[in-house]
Amino acid sequence: MTIQAETMIIPTFDDVLIAHERIKPYIHRTPVLTSTFLNELTGAELFFKCENFQKAGAFKARGASNAVFSLSENKAAVGVATHSSGNHALSLSYAAGRRGIPVTVVMPHSAPQAKKDAVRGYGGTIVECEPSLSSRESTFAQVVAESGAEFVHPYNDPRVIAGQGTCSLELNEQVENLEMVVAPIGGGGMVSGTCLTLSNVAPDIKIYAAEPLNADDAARSLHAGHIIADDAPETVADGLKVPLKDLTWHFVKNHVTDILTATEEEIVDAMKLIWKRMKIVMEPSSAVPLATIIKNKEIFQGKRVGVIITGGNVDLDNLPWNKN
Amino acid sequence: MTIQAETMIIPTFDDVLIAHERIKPYIHRTPVLTSTFLNELTGAELFFKCENFQKAGAFKARGASNAVFSLSENKAAVGVATHSSGNHALSLSYAAGRRGIPVTVVMPHSAPQAKKDAVRGYGGTIVECEPSLSSRESTFAQVVAESGAEFVHPYNDPRVIAGQGTCSLELNEQVENLEMVVAPIGGGGMVSGTCLTLSNVAPDIKIYAAEPLNADDAARSLHAGHIIADDAPETVADGLKVPLKDLTWHFVKNHVTDILTATEEEIVDAMKLIWKRMKIVMEPSSAVPLATIIKNKEIFQGKRVGVIITGGNVDLDNLPWNKN
Repeated sequence: MTIQAETMIIPTFDDVLIAHERIKPYIHRTPVLTSTFLNELTGAELFFKCENFQKAGAFKARGASNAVFSLSENKAAVGVATHSSGNHALSLSYAAGRRGIPVTVVMPHSAPQAKKDAVRGYGGTIVECEPSLSSRESTFAQVVAESGAEFVHPYNDPRVIAGQGTCSLELNEQVENLEMVVAPIGGGGMVSGTCLTLSNVAPDIKIYAAEPLNADDAARSLHAGHIIADDAPETVADGLKVPLKDLTWHFVKNHVTDILTATEEEIVDAMKLIWKRMKIVMEPSSAVPLATIIKNKEIFQGKRVGVIITGGNVDLDNLPWNKN
Repeated sequence: MTIQAETMIIPTFDDVLIAHERIKPYIHRTPVLTSTFLNELTGAELFFKCENFQKAGAFKARGASNAVFSLSENKAAVGVATHSSGNHALSLSYAAGRRGIPVTVVMPHSAPQAKKDAVRGYGGTIVECEPSLSSRESTFAQVVAESGAEFVHPYNDPRVIAGQGTCSLELNEQVENLEMVVAPIGGGGMVSGTCLTLSNVAPDIKIYAAEPLNADDAARSLHAGHIIADDAPETVADGLKVPLKDLTWHFVKNHVTDILTATEEEIVDAMKLIWKRMKIVMEPSSAVPLATIIKNKEIFQGKRVGVIITGGNVDLDNLPWNKN
């Protein structure tokens, strides 16, 4: 880890503040919603930060916009590229479209059709790969070698983490006296941004991450004390399959109180409960925090808890409770 | 019509203002959402008043709360009763629950399971009938005769119409310089409340009603100059099957510019578009206005248009685009 630590550029809280000013014209200050029913169910006071209403349908528009709009004119002209299981690809396409520069995304052919359509709708070019980490990375290396495009990693990038940090900056302004925040964890970009911001503006707020049991590499990493990466885990929470990387691991190991897990059934039940009671459309990944709160009531009871609803890009023709 | 007009109690704008004060503790001031995508699609500026986020999941909590909380102590103690295709039943149960009084609802056995569960969840008693107007009315007469409960009609009731009028009162405060409002029409309670309020606070705003072509009795009534009632029309917009009555007809004939219709396919497409782009869960009935706006672009182009999203109580296991 020593060598990696020396070469890492770790974003600072100033980077979050600069990011927030930079991206304001391109993102929504999303609302915070509450539900009497879910408060009664959990015994906690839950404040849902609704990034499903964000531009491009997910919090990733924050980090992608920060990366795209911090590029020099020369770099921007060549364009940007990424690999992503969906929302980052879509968000980078959105941000590049706003700046008017080319964007290429490498995406598993198994990614939801809604996400592919949206990337193309924003003017992005898709190069398909197999749904494994190794195929994704090798395909991507080829794309970058050919185009010379600037790589914007979905999460292991200081510009992206600083951008994601603007979400909890807003949440902390919108809700007084928060005691805990729960965010889903895949690669750890949202969680790292949350750690970066809250450790500076409200260090007493405990940060929990929520992960599918079927893709619990981050939880096992935290308990083992080093990064554990699985290749292509299977979960309905398709945004959370990717592993931690050095930069996100830095934030997770230093600031996350615990990583809680939920089964596939618990995730789908929590998702349906949010749709039914809160009348919002959100992704399976975004339901993992509520699933872990319902499962671990003793941790959250009586507390004021921020819950990050990370995105709303779901394939309406293929909802998890309608699958055979 | 003369005799009916003499016996009708027509609510006034003062009744709307009194209703708003009375029901404030029991309802949400729902948000108004916009969508860049839908504005570009229609060429209009659309402002969606989101009553799907209302208590009990629909605007009907306004009228029901006004009726329940305007009862004398003696009348309230005996309880309230109604017949309804769903949301009014649920809203009356919600309001009665808040006041702590008994409530009985007559509901077609074919009503969505989600609505039956919710009525019972609020403490209401359900008496089932056949899914026809005649069965509904005869079953209900029996219930009232036996219980002595106060009848709160789903729409043909001055207390209910005054309550529904609080929705456009808020909308007109939330959005400056509205030029048109489009609301779905079934029995006409929401449209009547909209007429009552806007004809007083902003008489230049044109009011359009939107109706399923499969249940276009209100459109035919407006064009014929008298009420036409169909028995049990079939449409995916299950909240809009009921006919106009004398009180709602009074408002419709005097204040509605036109009633536009949409096919079943157009309604489902508009509903899916709203779910996908706005990330909100709403009912087929609530999609009829957007369907008619997309179909009649020439009327709405360049205008600032309020659109009432009337409710969000949809059966997630039985979505219209997943039916075989």
